[in-house]
Amino acid sequence: MSLPNDPVRYNPRLVRLGMFGGGAGSSIGAAHRVAARFDGRFRLLAGAFSSDPMRSREFAATLDIDRDRRYGTWQELVQGEAGREDGVEVVSIMTPNNSHFAIARGLLEHGFDVMCDKPLTTRLDDALELHRVAQRSGLVFGVTYNYSGYPMVRHARFMVESGLLGEIRLVQVEHASGWASDLLEAQGHKQATWRTDPAIAGKSTVVGDLGTHAHHLVRFVTGLEVAELSAELSTIVPGRTSDDNAHIKLRLDNGARGLMWVSMVAVGHEHGQRLRVYGETGSIDWAQEHPNHLIHRPRDEPAQILSRGAPGLSPQAQDASRLWPGHPEGFLAAFANVYNDMADAVISRRSGAAWDSVSPMLPTTVDGVLGVKFVEAAVESDLEDGAWVDATAALS
Amino acid sequence: MSLPNDPVRYNPRLVRLGMFGGGAGSSIGAAHRVAARFDGRFRLLAGAFSSDPMRSREFAATLDIDRDRRYGTWQELVQGEAGREDGVEVVSIMTPNNSHFAIARGLLEHGFDVMCDKPLTTRLDDALELHRVAQRSGLVFGVTYNYSGYPMVRHARFMVESGLLGEIRLVQVEHASGWASDLLEAQGHKQATWRTDPAIAGKSTVVGDLGTHAHHLVRFVTGLEVAELSAELSTIVPGRTSDDNAHIKLRLDNGARGLMWVSMVAVGHEHGQRLRVYGETGSIDWAQEHPNHLIHRPRDEPAQILSRGAPGLSPQAQDASRLWPGHPEGFLAAFANVYNDMADAVISRRSGAAWDSVSPMLPTTVDGVLGVKFVEAAVESDLEDGAWVDATAALS
Amino acid sequence: MSLPNDPVRYNPRLVRLGMFGGGAGSSIGAAHRVAARFDGRFRLLAGAFSSDPMRSREFAATLDIDRDRRYGTWQELVQGEAGREDGVEVVSIMTPNNSHFAIARGLLEHGFDVMCDKPLTTRLDDALELHRVAQRSGLVFGVTYNYSGYPMVRHARFMVESGLLGEIRLVQVEHASGWASDLLEAQGHKQATWRTDPAIAGKSTVVGDLGTHAHHLVRFVTGLEVAELSAELSTIVPGRTSDDNAHIKLRLDNGARGLMWVSMVAVGHEHGQRLRVYGETGSIDWAQEHPNHLIHRPRDEPAQILSRGAPGLSPQAQDASRLWPGHPEGFLAAFANVYNDMADAVISRRSGAAWDSVSPMLPTTVDGVLGVKFVEAAVESDLEDGAWVDATAALS
Amino acid sequence: MSLPNDPVRYNPRLVRLGMFGGGAGSSIGAAHRVAARFDGRFRLLAGAFSSDPMRSREFAATLDIDRDRRYGTWQELVQGEAGREDGVEVVSIMTPNNSHFAIARGLLEHGFDVMCDKPLTTRLDDALELHRVAQRSGLVFGVTYNYSGYPMVRHARFMVESGLLGEIRLVQVEHASGWASDLLEAQGHKQATWRTDPAIAGKSTVVGDLGTHAHHLVRFVTGLEVAELSAELSTIVPGRTSDDNAHIKLRLDNGARGLMWVSMVAVGHEHGQRLRVYGETGSIDWAQEHPNHLIHRPRDEPAQILSRGAPGLSPQAQDASRLWPGHPEGFLAAFANVYNDMADAVISRRSGAAWDSVSPMLPTTVDGVLGVKFVEAAVESDLEDGAWVDATAALS
Repeated sequence: MSLPNDPVRYNPRLVRLGMFGGGAGSSIGAAHRVAARFDGRFRLLAGAFSSDPMRSREFAATLDIDRDRRYGTWQELVQGEAGREDGVEVVSIMTPNNSHFAIARGLLEHGFDVMCDKPLTTRLDDALELHRVAQRSGLVFGVTYNYSGYPMVRHARFMVESGLLGEIRLVQVEHASGWASDLLEAQGHKQATWRTDPAIAGKSTVVGDLGTHAHHLVRFVTGLEVAELSAELSTIVPGRTSDDNAHIKLRLDNGARGLMWVSMVAVGHEHGQRLRVYGETGSIDWAQEHPNHLIHRPRDEPAQILSRGAPGLSPQAQDASRLWPGHPEGFLAAFANVYNDMADAVISRRSGAAWDSVSPMLPTTVDGVLGVKFVEAAVESDLEDGAWVDATAALS
Repeated sequence: MSLPNDPVRYNPRLVRLGMFGGGAGSSIGAAHRVAARFDGRFRLLAGAFSSDPMRSREFAATLDIDRDRRYGTWQELVQGEAGREDGVEVVSIMTPNNSHFAIARGLLEHGFDVMCDKPLTTRLDDALELHRVAQRSGLVFGVTYNYSGYPMVRHARFMVESGLLGEIRLVQVEHASGWASDLLEAQGHKQATWRTDPAIAGKSTVVGDLGTHAHHLVRFVTGLEVAELSAELSTIVPGRTSDDNAHIKLRLDNGARGLMWVSMVAVGHEHGQRLRVYGETGSIDWAQEHPNHLIHRPRDEPAQILSRGAPGLSPQAQDASRLWPGHPEGFLAAFANVYNDMADAVISRRSGAAWDSVSPMLPTTVDGVLGVKFVEAAVESDLEDGAWVDATAALS
Repeated sequence: MSLPNDPVRYNPRLVRLGMFGGGAGSSIGAAHRVAARFDGRFRLLAGAFSSDPMRSREFAATLDIDRDRRYGTWQELVQGEAGREDGVEVVSIMTPNNSHFAIARGLLEHGFDVMCDKPLTTRLDDALELHRVAQRSGLVFGVTYNYSGYPMVRHARFMVESGLLGEIRLVQVEHASGWASDLLEAQGHKQATWRTDPAIAGKSTVVGDLGTHAHHLVRFVTGLEVAELSAELSTIVPGRTSDDNAHIKLRLDNGARGLMWVSMVAVGHEHGQRLRVYGETGSIDWAQEHPNHLIHRPRDEPAQILSRGAPGLSPQAQDASRLWPGHPEGFLAAFANVYNDMADAVISRRSGAAWDSVSPMLPTTVDGVLGVKFVEAAVESDLEDGAWVDATAALS
Repeated sequence: MSLPNDPVRYNPRLVRLGMFGGGAGSSIGAAHRVAARFDGRFRLLAGAFSSDPMRSREFAATLDIDRDRRYGTWQELVQGEAGREDGVEVVSIMTPNNSHFAIARGLLEHGFDVMCDKPLTTRLDDALELHRVAQRSGLVFGVTYNYSGYPMVRHARFMVESGLLGEIRLVQVEHASGWASDLLEAQGHKQATWRTDPAIAGKSTVVGDLGTHAHHLVRFVTGLEVAELSAELSTIVPGRTSDDNAHIKLRLDNGARGLMWVSMVAVGHEHGQRLRVYGETGSIDWAQEHPNHLIHRPRDEPAQILSRGAPGLSPQAQDASRLWPGHPEGFLAAFANVYNDMADAVISRRSGAAWDSVSPMLPTTVDGVLGVKFVEAAVESDLEDGAWVDATAALS
């Protein structure tokens, strides 16, 4: 029960949030919650956090969720929230890959906005269907390609868009971590176990998990699409049953060439995401582990270190910043930027407006579908010994 | 009015927070709010945010603070909150330096825990009195030396404490920014105007603002006290009426030597805080602009890059971390760690327990007093052409 | 004429050197000369420095070469020096690629040791023939894969060889510069003109020039051979008639996977050579632009910065160092190390000993042949749309 | 005996060099020899390399110095070379500090140009006398403040001189190494033994050895003189009888403030030389361990990484460079630049011209005297508990 002046219910700036997954011990769950809370725009009011209903409810209690909004399954949540005047508007999904489709479709069908982890689905057809359902519904559907939330990534996008680099010629992208350099799945490691199980993770472990991030980062910054790819997926760790490393040549739709390395066996690496874009008149270099700086190398001039928050950056970068230059912002602040875009979109959608123009940087099912297509194309190319394979999708 | 199961009122994990200062356009105010909200342990319920009561209330409205808890002055806040069952427990003070003393004392006298920005006061006597009042009250009094919240700063402290560097011999500390390289105060720049006004900022602008941070960082990491100092305070920017640069030689209480450079005219610098500590068997190097790494240089062995979140770090560092290694945490996460220490202390104090052992890293009035003493000693030394001056304080 | 105690003639430590190419305006010529002179082990006594005999002689005069040893063609040099008691022993070749074969064969046939720039030849058959002629002759034949002269590259090799990284799994190599991001060949730029002319540079400009360096670096450090490759050669700059960028997937002969990027259009890059090697238990990272350091990332331990000259490095690294740690050595010192290996080999050969065991790190025709094979395989793969092509050569 | 066309004797570009000190096991001796040989402008023809005449001659033999020019003492060298038609012109002195004065004066008196290590002498009076003798003689007298030979240091000087930073306000200089963090002198370490003996090294070990370098670097780059200093010299390592760390506040002659830290006990540091200069409109940052780059931070614009050899640098930087950008040059190349300046000066002096305008960047006795004065002023200030002491010298 809530009062007439309850800020959660009537505050037009606050968005009412529910969650699926991300329970006890889940790092990504915690990240979602901090991100949603960061700027005070979401209030987490309901959720089902675990596949075990009892553990789900116990965990919900630790989050101070009202007793009657601690759910055991997503169906319960839909039922419980759909009827409430103060029911959640958006539901974030952070369950393993193979469950996204059914949950997301169910949520859309019951009128909820959705925020879903990537890869959107494990099968392209499912992704396309989600896209169609979302389109028809008019609901907001965000996909947490969270690295696009970094201010300097947004500034990179601005630079390309503004023509500061000239025509784009080359792209080098890496997302090479070393977290699974051992056979962790044989040691009961939860993440490693489901991520290396194709039934849960999808056709490619490493491209699904990391390659989709790298793929989106390239598209987000360059505004180009990956037209074709030639991939080699490898299983580096003996005994592993999924791939764990991928080397992928890219052809972008303007003719630019690219190279992608995604790995979970780059021993010694922590995160390992880096994007370099080379145009006719300059290049840029950004690495997630030092996200507050973007190196710009104009042709025949000294390299410049662009710094988050500094005067002269684009409005896109400034809007995504909270702090003075020199005060580092991190991963969670970037994640929060994606959530803020979601909030803007939801608030716009509530009022019946077209939400996509409000949050042009929010990754949507379009990005989700192309990510799944990218995974499928990589797998297909690998099966054909590296043949060039179409990586585009018909997204009428 | 609130309900019996209101999470704010009855949740033993949640701390009820009020604020003074930090209104429209204040960066530090926003930082406090994000920090308090970061891990969901505080709920901001009341505040007076501006010296203009009307603007204060308007700003409070944007924060969704209940109408009857939007105050115009701190006295109103004390009156309004002291009697409420769900009244705020802690009040954070982020007003200009010269107002800290009266507000903080008033809050203590009415039974509120206090979180106060540094420098604690503009006069040593005031600081000592606050310390005594706080001691007698048994209330929690935190001082936002927020850089001590960084996980790798805490790990540095652990390394020294554990003897990993041997006896400490040398300390080099800088907090040299370039924000006031121009005569901003002549251009109506709000921060520059009050910070360069001794009546508001205290006897030294640059030592009060930045030197106190550097001073605390040295003490926090090394566990040593600054015994004596020899300072030169300079006014570098023509036309300025306060100092804006300080060069300070330090003698620590174990005989180690140190050098401090604090500046607001190091043109081109953004934040410029860096601490290096040299012991008998190794040294460490940390810079706030790259806070997720700590360089450790053991004698006669390769330098090591210690990374936040990585296996093998101290419990102190791990407890202050939220994310996997390679996912950078920033300034706000560090600030939140100080707020979390405050929350632990407040919850412990509520139950009648000794809160200082619960939050041993929370900066308190002891640190606040020594910071003010450091400012006074620097000013005195400078007046005596750099004579060595005692920098300790009797804190019985 | 020289005297009985002439140090050049009778000093067993000094090697008498001649040169082909590298005349006025040639940077590589100057680099060879400094490298040869660096440690005082060579004396440059004769040479033909330009295809124009007059300019050749004029340039020789500026080097204080005796009048009668300033030659116009390599044939003149052979004739002039072969008969002299104090004739040059080694001749360095730094002419454009397509001339290496005839000159080197001619020198070998007349009993000269040879130091030849890479790529060894423009055709694999020529390279193989040179290899056979060199083998039969017993003469020393060095190939200036000069990056192998860096102390930390040699230490990297030692680390792999010693098993410090475990079995090698992945290799990432780049040699991506931006020097030809414009159509320099249309502006009369000498280097760009011949390097983009297949008749002079060979079948691939970028793989011949930079890919061969990257290829050797991989082999030198890992001790592995490139078994197969899949290449895409591209012409990025409009109007260019040669390739200028290559993306190459590698399969090494132990099953490891690799990725190579070589480019002359990575705008904003200066040199852009970097090698990363990932094994089972650790990885290493080295970049030519910061050659005095090698990052070692052991599994589950902090990254280490290994520093040239520091205690604890391998004998191979220490022998290639001249200075205390912290005093940077550069490109020319590394180049000089290759020349020193050559000197050791020549002195050993003089005495009839087997020179290859004396200078095990000196690149030879074996390396030269495999480099040319690598170019040919890359071109073949590219023509077949990236098919995997054998990159090995029969070097009986 | 030499022939009419002997390049050593008659080549106007070649300078005939002798050496004192720098024998077996001396790193600085080897550095001098490589530097002199680097660009082929000096020929080492004579020397006395050790205080033990027999070892001196044996060492000379390893350098291929003619038997009759292998000397046992400097007096022998003067006698032997003064009369020869092909006698050495310049003699480099790299013996311990306390011997510089007598040798240098003796050489000047016999008409030799001199290249002398720093500190010039151990007493100010001696330095002043050397200066007067050198002035009267018209001979070239260079002092090996070798860090001034780095191209990017010369570019830094150019930037200040050109007003690119505006009026200089602050200088931060460090030369803090960790080489003597242990009591090496108790372990028979040769360098440590003489350097910590005031009878040999002079009144301050650390200021004499490293402070003079830092002092010259400041003066060379800023064009400013150190007017006053306030120093604290410390003995950090227990059992040591000399100082090993210095913290020095500086006042420059334009009113700028500075801070110098010189140390041999900064454990974990290798070389540790870094200079930062802050002006009204920008700052620069250079570190000897990464000498090919200079960071320029213009006010309110992004930081720029200036790179040795890149287009757009000053003629001073380009003239001191040999290689394309991206091909690092090191310590020896910088040292060679000082030798090249010496060669230019000697050749000019030979022809009767004023040599100082030819080599305006060659450090001379002026720099040497001011360096010795700096040591004496630091010692005096320290004895007076950090009083401000005049650091200028009357060099009429």
